[in-house]
Amino acid sequence: MGPRDGLQNENVQISTEIKLAVISALANSGLKEIEATSFVSPKWVPQLGDAFELWGQLPPGPLYSCLVPNQRGLHRALEAAAKRIAVFTAVTDEFCEHNLNMSVDESLAVFSEVVSEFRGQVPDGWVRGYLSTSFECPYSGRVNPERTAAALIRLFDLGVDEVSIGDTVGKAGPKEVAALCSEISAVDKGKVVWHFHDTYGTAVANTAMALQHGYLAFDASAGGLGGCPYSPGAGGNLSTDDLVYFLERSGVPTGVDREKLAHASEVIFQALGRSPASKAQVATLACSP
Amino acid sequence: MGPRDGLQNENVQISTEIKLAVISALANSGLKEIEATSFVSPKWVPQLGDAFELWGQLPPGPLYSCLVPNQRGLHRALEAAAKRIAVFTAVTDEFCEHNLNMSVDESLAVFSEVVSEFRGQVPDGWVRGYLSTSFECPYSGRVNPERTAAALIRLFDLGVDEVSIGDTVGKAGPKEVAALCSEISAVDKGKVVWHFHDTYGTAVANTAMALQHGYLAFDASAGGLGGCPYSPGAGGNLSTDDLVYFLERSGVPTGVDREKLAHASEVIFQALGRSPASKAQVATLACSP
Repeated sequence: MGPRDGLQNENVQISTEIKLAVISALANSGLKEIEATSFVSPKWVPQLGDAFELWGQLPPGPLYSCLVPNQRGLHRALEAAAKRIAVFTAVTDEFCEHNLNMSVDESLAVFSEVVSEFRGQVPDGWVRGYLSTSFECPYSGRVNPERTAAALIRLFDLGVDEVSIGDTVGKAGPKEVAALCSEISAVDKGKVVWHFHDTYGTAVANTAMALQHGYLAFDASAGGLGGCPYSPGAGGNLSTDDLVYFLERSGVPTGVDREKLAHASEVIFQALGRSPASKAQVATLACSP
Repeated sequence: MGPRDGLQNENVQISTEIKLAVISALANSGLKEIEATSFVSPKWVPQLGDAFELWGQLPPGPLYSCLVPNQRGLHRALEAAAKRIAVFTAVTDEFCEHNLNMSVDESLAVFSEVVSEFRGQVPDGWVRGYLSTSFECPYSGRVNPERTAAALIRLFDLGVDEVSIGDTVGKAGPKEVAALCSEISAVDKGKVVWHFHDTYGTAVANTAMALQHGYLAFDASAGGLGGCPYSPGAGGNLSTDDLVYFLERSGVPTGVDREKLAHASEVIFQALGRSPASKAQVATLACSP
């Protein structure tokens, strides 16, 4: 998620050239699926204003997906020949109102139109649904797992191929993950992805809990790129480096070369003017300068 | 562990005055047990050369302990009227040879003399035994849980009150923690402490696994102070901030005020010339500048 969720939360504009170099390095490290950008309005997220240009130059190899916030975004994604899109909503109305200026129901209506238009145009396409504030909302506090489970079912009813369950503020702990796993145990585990933010250092522990419950798909961002927009200065996405280290050490092969991965995002940190902060990345770079 | 294990691995000398201010702030945040220093030779660890001076000025409140590497250290600790001491050894000879210039057996012999002399002089004293390289040795690689369990039993046979099981290099993952928990299931859980380093970002996940197995005692260092001496630049101890956040979020009350804790170590980071890096600390400080 580094090129999309990572960069959209950074204040600095990274050139298309650097992004492509990083994506290429990530692909070369062994990553097989990369969310490359978002076809969002450049007015709202100027960091990703080069989506169309970037998409046309992606190096072959991995599966690429892109975020599509609305029908205008979908049209640009279709024009770019994207075959894997992601749409997003949240469990809480408060979050949707603040971020999308819509209620959850309104966002699902937009979402539904986007998905059916995409299905019509790209029969072999693939759609992911993001479910934000699955554990806690920055505006309305803790979210019950029953409520998140109900929202998840609604997303699947709209015809998405998978749902990414997001701890948007990065406040969840493994106990909450276990509770949500119990709530959604009837859902096909192969269609569920976990999206943890590491704001308070719980992302690997949350991943471990989901893994223990049989889930194998996790979103992450190289070097933990991406601040948390709700806690300025605080940590962003679970770092891909930490995730890969954890999985390999747990006996789950990833096919990723940890050294190449650690080096892949270095150029972005240089451009952002700060040092990498992901523990596994820093430790790996210390052993392989 | 910040004042001892944290500072002993930092290259910068912190003044006794600053250490006392931090210990006082840590006590004020609600911490009830602090390893304040080590009565090690100032020649070997100049950072802790003020042990005697510091010990005499510790603010009342928490239980304080000190590391005692040998009989000379014990005599200084006794002179300072220390009532809680910690001795250390490792599972692997390679680590003991490199760090103590002794085999494990030789270190246990020293250890045994220190403990019996201490017991003779301080009948109501308390002794902790550190067991380094419990999962992996930087010189000889992975360590089998059976071997660590056997070493643990030997420490208890020497009469220590508790053993702190150390992941010295910070490479263990929760699967290894679970395996070791199974091996030592016959040991009183109240006498076992887990000492994780966060070199690769697994410390909170390891803590979660031990908690899940019924353990409730964990070593940590304010702000994650302390580099890993085997990976220059890489992360040190599990941060107390991350630990407290994780425990509270898991429903385990700690009695610690997270804001006060986050602020407690700031002055040390200033003196070290770097920013705090513990996720929970950074996030907490961002909300409470």
